Amino acid sequence: MSDTGLFISFEGIDGSGKSTQARLLADHLRDLGHDVVLTREPGGSPGAEEIRALVLQGDPDRWSARTEILLFTAARRDHLERTIQPALDAGKIVICDRFADSTRMYQGLSRGDLRGIVDELHRLMIGVEPDLTVLIDMDPTQGLSRALARQTVEERFEDFGEELQRAMRKGFLDLAQEYAQRFVTIDGARGIDDVTADVQQVVAARLPS
Amino acid sequence: MSDTGLFISFEGIDGSGKSTQARLLADHLRDLGHDVVLTREPGGSPGAEEIRALVLQGDPDRWSARTEILLFTAARRDHLERTIQPALDAGKIVICDRFADSTRMYQGLSRGDLRGIVDELHRLMIGVEPDLTVLIDMDPTQGLSRALARQTVEERFEDFGEELQRAMRKGFLDLAQEYAQRFVTIDGARGIDDVTADVQQVVAARLPS
Repeated sequence: MSDTGLFISFEGIDGSGKSTQARLLADHLRDLGHDVVLTREPGGSPGAEEIRALVLQGDPDRWSARTEILLFTAARRDHLERTIQPALDAGKIVICDRFADSTRMYQGLSRGDLRGIVDELHRLMIGVEPDLTVLIDMDPTQGLSRALARQTVEERFEDFGEELQRAMRKGFLDLAQEYAQRFVTIDGARGIDDVTADVQQVVAARLPS
Repeated sequence: MSDTGLFISFEGIDGSGKSTQARLLADHLRDLGHDVVLTREPGGSPGAEEIRALVLQGDPDRWSARTEILLFTAARRDHLERTIQPALDAGKIVICDRFADSTRMYQGLSRGDLRGIVDELHRLMIGVEPDLTVLIDMDPTQGLSRALARQTVEERFEDFGEELQRAMRKGFLDLAQEYAQRFVTIDGARGIDDVTADVQQVVAARLPS
C-alpha cells in the first residue's frame, strides 16, 4: 500500500447500478488486500447524516434551492473532514457513492440554473475532487424500471419523470466531458458482471503500488 | 407607512442588553402604528430554528468552524427568504436580534480567522445588509455580570472568558467603523431608559414617512 490514498466516486442516474458497483468494487479491492472505506452522499459521517435527514424529511419545498445547496455543502464539508480526508491521509482507498458531481448535476438542473453558485461554494468550502469518477451510464427508461423494481426509489423520485431523467443522463455525460481527466464512463446497460469487470479494469490502472 | 420596509439589526456582546432594546423598540414602533416584525438569529424562521437546534445541541466540537459557518449561512438564507424579505416587501419594519455582523465577529474571531470565508459566503448566498445596525456597546465586565445575573447565558458562554469578551467588544467596534454608514453605536452602560431613548432617537430619523 502506498501512503497516499485514492479517492474514487461513482455517479449515475437512479437505477444505473452505481451503488451496487461501488459495493462490489469495495469487496474486490478488500479481497486484493487494500484498506477500503465505502461511503456515500448525502451523508457519510454522523453529522452529515443528521443534515441529510434534515434536508430530505418533510415537505420537499420547505427548503429553497439555495438553502438546500448550503445544507448539502455543510454535509459534504463534514463528510470530507471526518470520513474522507482522514482515510486518504491514512493511505486508504475511499469509494464514495455520489460526490460533488451529483450536486453540480441535480442542483444545476432540477432546481434552476444554480451551477455557478454550486461551483463557487465548492471552490470556497470543499476544494477536493476525486482522483477517479466512474460514471455508470444507462438509458433512463431502463434505469427507471430497475429503480422501481428494487423499490428503493426515493420519495421524490416520482417528481422526476422520464424527460428529466434524460436531462440528468445528459448532465452527467456533459460533466464527464468537462472533467475528462478524472471521469471514466462505463456502459451500465449490460449484465452486471460485464460492468463490474470494466470497473475493475479502470481502477486497476490507478491503484497504489 | 411607506411601501418599502426598514431593516434594523441589533448587535452587541452577551449581557449588553441588545435583546431587551430590540423588544422595547418593537413595542415603541407598534405604539406609533408601524407594522413590526421582531425576529432573531440564529433562527427566526421554522427551518432556521431547526438548523439552529442542530448546530447548538450536543458537543460544541462536533461541527468544525467551516461546517458551522455553512449551517449558519443556510439558516440565515432561510430566515431571509421566509421571514425578513417578505416583511420588507410588504413595507414592514424588521427588527432582528443579531444578523450577519455577529457571524463576521464570532466566526472571524472565536473560531479562527475565517472572516474571508464568512464574507465570500455572505456575498454569494445572502447579499443583504440592514439599513441600520444598532450596536449596544458595553464594558465586558458589566455585560458578563448582567448575563450571569439573568441566567439566560448560553451553555457555551463559560468558554468565553473576559479576555475573549474584550476581543469581541473590539470586534463589534471595528465592524462599526468598517460599516460606518449603517452602524450607530450606543453606550449601553447606563440606565435602561437612557439607552432606550437613544435608540428611539436614532431610529426616528430613518422611519418611513
